[in-house]
Amino acid sequence: MIITVIGLGLIGGSMALELKSQLCVHVIGVDAKIEHQKQALDRSLVSEIADLNEGVQKADVVIIATPVDSIEQLLPQVLDIANEHTVVIDVGSTKSGICTKVKSHKNRARYIAAHPLAGTEFSGPQAAIKDLFKGKKNIICEHELSAPDAVDTATQVFNSMGLTTYYMGSKEHDRHLAYVSHLSHVTSFTLGLTVLNIEKDEKQIFNLASTGFESTARLAKSNPETWAAIFDKNNEFLVEALDSYIGYLQKFRLGIVQRKTSETKALMTEANDIKRILQR
Amino acid sequence: MIITVIGLGLIGGSMALELKSQLCVHVIGVDAKIEHQKQALDRSLVSEIADLNEGVQKADVVIIATPVDSIEQLLPQVLDIANEHTVVIDVGSTKSGICTKVKSHKNRARYIAAHPLAGTEFSGPQAAIKDLFKGKKNIICEHELSAPDAVDTATQVFNSMGLTTYYMGSKEHDRHLAYVSHLSHVTSFTLGLTVLNIEKDEKQIFNLASTGFESTARLAKSNPETWAAIFDKNNEFLVEALDSYIGYLQKFRLGIVQRKTSETKALMTEANDIKRILQR
Repeated sequence: MIITVIGLGLIGGSMALELKSQLCVHVIGVDAKIEHQKQALDRSLVSEIADLNEGVQKADVVIIATPVDSIEQLLPQVLDIANEHTVVIDVGSTKSGICTKVKSHKNRARYIAAHPLAGTEFSGPQAAIKDLFKGKKNIICEHELSAPDAVDTATQVFNSMGLTTYYMGSKEHDRHLAYVSHLSHVTSFTLGLTVLNIEKDEKQIFNLASTGFESTARLAKSNPETWAAIFDKNNEFLVEALDSYIGYLQKFRLGIVQRKTSETKALMTEANDIKRILQR
Repeated sequence: MIITVIGLGLIGGSMALELKSQLCVHVIGVDAKIEHQKQALDRSLVSEIADLNEGVQKADVVIIATPVDSIEQLLPQVLDIANEHTVVIDVGSTKSGICTKVKSHKNRARYIAAHPLAGTEFSGPQAAIKDLFKGKKNIICEHELSAPDAVDTATQVFNSMGLTTYYMGSKEHDRHLAYVSHLSHVTSFTLGLTVLNIEKDEKQIFNLASTGFESTARLAKSNPETWAAIFDKNNEFLVEALDSYIGYLQKFRLGIVQRKTSETKALMTEANDIKRILQR
């Protein structure tokens, strides 16, 4: 099987690495950045590098793993070039806009809208790692618009990386992700900005940072290009989530300002219910 | 050496456990909650349980590890009871209010205002663990008001738990901690509240939560009583930190609402400088 991975960053690079280790799989890499092409070859993430046309024409399966704004642009082109047996998968973190973009494309049935729920705060081909997807969940959206054989092939590809696939609507997916992933990134970036700003006056401030800070600010290391595109494409749901967050934050702030510990205690007791979810 | 630990929760319990394992150290536990007394004995965190008077009178070193509001109330009483050789240490997460409270106490020189920078999101005697303090930093504030022999003894106690001690002013301490610890707790609790709220409509939402969410929401499991007191006692600096955070959050929100990816990208690139601090 020939699999072409477009975009050799953390996600695409890790998928290429995983698939290339399998018997009878030949992985072709496509990336607009010469630097990424070089790093992917140096790290043996792919067997060869090709341009977009050649990579897609040769492939049985194409995986598009570029930032979500670029996926929206590339996907119609890839579906134009691909032959009638090719399966074209995108693995972007937002799904609704991308699905809408190709809704009426003549080759829509060859397309699989996927999102493997895995990642780290690092980026680029150098960040690609083995087993990134092992034991993780994968979402396929609007699978009823994809040909059954394409869903089968894509599911097998995801299974082979250790992912378990679930199905849901693209709007529902985007709304959920706004709350349980995208919002966490905004709050983490914001925390980073806040403490870096005070560091201008208080040079030693990070000496006192403990594991709690590290845990909450870790995502502030994430790639701006990737996340600017995600925030933009999931605009509507993310603003909804942010406004709910800001509402709770203002409640908290008011409790602190007015020194009503009973109020802040009540909010925290409510938040403690997260123990039900994060059990470890 | 007889060491009395007042408050047998995560911090006090872990200290008791650590100290009790050392040769020639006898650890007396004091806790207002019968349940905590029982758990501390069951887990052998302490050698015996005593009431406040007896515990303090017998001790060479007293460690107060209750919530910070309770420390403010207990500390003057403990200094009243303690004899002239006793060293009285508090290990609360805020220092300025506590230091002010005993500034003119006749036994001020026997008091050490400390804060070991260690913890987990769990609480109570059951959460006490060995090696919690190993390799961590300890802060002593206003050490110039403590007798040199008391500073020496306290530093030896902290060293024996694997802590390295640094000195700073209590205001400076509280301001720094507001940014690199207390703010992270507020944002984490708020994130928990936000997602628990949307869960009322979207029952399956946590199925999609990834490691990024877990990392940023982990602190929402923390003890409301402990943290309500910290937020209240560090009121002024925490509100300053929160307002700076809210300012950046509003900038971010505006960039997202107005779909200015160049703006959100610029904010995230600035936040990426956190890589300098969080290197792993």
